[in-house]
Amino acid sequence: MKKLINSPDSVIADALRGMAAAHPALSVDHDTRVISRAGGAAQGKVGLVSGGGSGHEPLHGGYVGPGMLDAAVPGEIYTSPVPDQILAATKAADGGAGVLHIVKNYTGDVLNFRMAAELAEDEDIRVSAVVMNDDTAVEDSTFTAGRRGTGATVVAEKIAGAAAAQGADLDAVTRLVTEVNDRSRSFGIALHAGTVPAAGTPGFELGPDEVELGVGIHGEPGRERGSMAPVRDLVAYALEAINADRPVGGDVLVLLNGQGGTPLIELYGAYAEAVDWLEGHGATVTRNLVGNYITSLDQAGFSITVTALDDELVRLWDAPVETPALRWGR
Amino acid sequence: MKKLINSPDSVIADALRGMAAAHPALSVDHDTRVISRAGGAAQGKVGLVSGGGSGHEPLHGGYVGPGMLDAAVPGEIYTSPVPDQILAATKAADGGAGVLHIVKNYTGDVLNFRMAAELAEDEDIRVSAVVMNDDTAVEDSTFTAGRRGTGATVVAEKIAGAAAAQGADLDAVTRLVTEVNDRSRSFGIALHAGTVPAAGTPGFELGPDEVELGVGIHGEPGRERGSMAPVRDLVAYALEAINADRPVGGDVLVLLNGQGGTPLIELYGAYAEAVDWLEGHGATVTRNLVGNYITSLDQAGFSITVTALDDELVRLWDAPVETPALRWGR
Repeated sequence: MKKLINSPDSVIADALRGMAAAHPALSVDHDTRVISRAGGAAQGKVGLVSGGGSGHEPLHGGYVGPGMLDAAVPGEIYTSPVPDQILAATKAADGGAGVLHIVKNYTGDVLNFRMAAELAEDEDIRVSAVVMNDDTAVEDSTFTAGRRGTGATVVAEKIAGAAAAQGADLDAVTRLVTEVNDRSRSFGIALHAGTVPAAGTPGFELGPDEVELGVGIHGEPGRERGSMAPVRDLVAYALEAINADRPVGGDVLVLLNGQGGTPLIELYGAYAEAVDWLEGHGATVTRNLVGNYITSLDQAGFSITVTALDDELVRLWDAPVETPALRWGR
Repeated sequence: MKKLINSPDSVIADALRGMAAAHPALSVDHDTRVISRAGGAAQGKVGLVSGGGSGHEPLHGGYVGPGMLDAAVPGEIYTSPVPDQILAATKAADGGAGVLHIVKNYTGDVLNFRMAAELAEDEDIRVSAVVMNDDTAVEDSTFTAGRRGTGATVVAEKIAGAAAAQGADLDAVTRLVTEVNDRSRSFGIALHAGTVPAAGTPGFELGPDEVELGVGIHGEPGRERGSMAPVRDLVAYALEAINADRPVGGDVLVLLNGQGGTPLIELYGAYAEAVDWLEGHGATVTRNLVGNYITSLDQAGFSITVTALDDELVRLWDAPVETPALRWGR
């Protein structure tokens, strides 16, 4: 294994030092491992907290800032953050209007966020939670009871962040995140597994002509091993799985996401195929993101998330956002 | 080779289709292979054109937009764009105030941009050119007479774009790009070579404990093969090379750049080490970019660019920019 690290034990601490140095608008607490906004919680605004195992950067720390999250908690690589850490983030995000936890559906995350919510309620912070489970690939997995939470989490964090910034209350923001989850489906395909630093070898082995269809964001197995094929066919396989679960149509947002080790030139090629397929099946792609937004270390591959839009979601998607990894103003 | 492509022959065309679909603010001419602003050239503004071989995305097409480039020309993978293509981009960027070509120092690029400039002058477009050569690693290389142009090109495109947007004339913008080049030094280290689709195998082979010190952006050899080491030591090696050539000090901008296959969590760790080293050597890092800005397909590794700042450069760096890959407003 060759990785750009000091040691497997220091990867998270070193990355947090880098994030703190690179982004003065963030406040990084190196003891509790909470990334929050440097200005502290906005009084009267609903607080938004997300987190999960590290290795998916820029998720979630890269999405802290105006118009998106208030705080993020990175666990060890592919390992849930602990309840005390989530509690510290919840306090950091609390501006008196309640705090929403956006949780990806993995057993450890769900359990630890729930414990943290109970601890926060003991301290009179009202907490709501939505568990994201947009991945159509498998019903249960090595990390999950039920479906996994993947790319729709990025969309939900953006939509929730805009709503909270505009003054929506905790119930309204919770409803919106639930709606994004309901309206979104995702599917991932890996060409080559990522390597967890402490393990030192790729998480799974694929033959020179094999791909993992329906792979999870921790390299969990998908539906089946398939044969390598032109990107047009791989994209069609992913979109057929999505379409079978929630038929596409109308205006949609597409997140064409890289898993960390696939170059941008290939992601744009995949995006072109996704647009062609969707428009051939009655959908119109009116919003998009193409790039590395929810990764699996250095894994080669992609995932597609399709979110059915309505006017309210478009308005919130287009609202200004100012974070390390997602930024625009209108 | 497993790549997310339809065929090695269609990689560029497919990626351009994806860019066009993803970014309605861009105009992509699929015949001439010119990426320009959808609104056309701004009358009275200096036009800015850059380009080079593909495989370095988001460079250069991802930097077309307000506050940065007017047009970009992608060649085949690791291959210069042709003169007619550069001429078409020059015409697209021409608003009557002259056009600046920002050229990375590779033999083919320098030659073809020069020919295009002559063709443009025949059509009464005033053209100026700056050849970027910030890479301290080697004096000549397989692709170059003299030093290679690398990461400083991103900085130069941003600075020039801001100046042109603010009304600077061709001579002033040309002077600024020359100044960015003079004030910048870069050095890259690869852990694993990228794979050119048409070749099908990595551009060079490194042993399980080897790194290429001073690698170029096309996988050209650097100064020497070294042994894998903690990121702190690799970053120090790169910065010592930079410092030996142009001593660091004062306020600097650091671009901690990924080569395409290295995950963001590792780049942030490397950035933390770069800041520590520079601040231990009398420099203050006041601006930064951390991420994949000038890549080499799926190559694993990083490069560091250090640019010595002054007040004018900071002001231009901070000016608004609105492109697919670099975006902020102030």
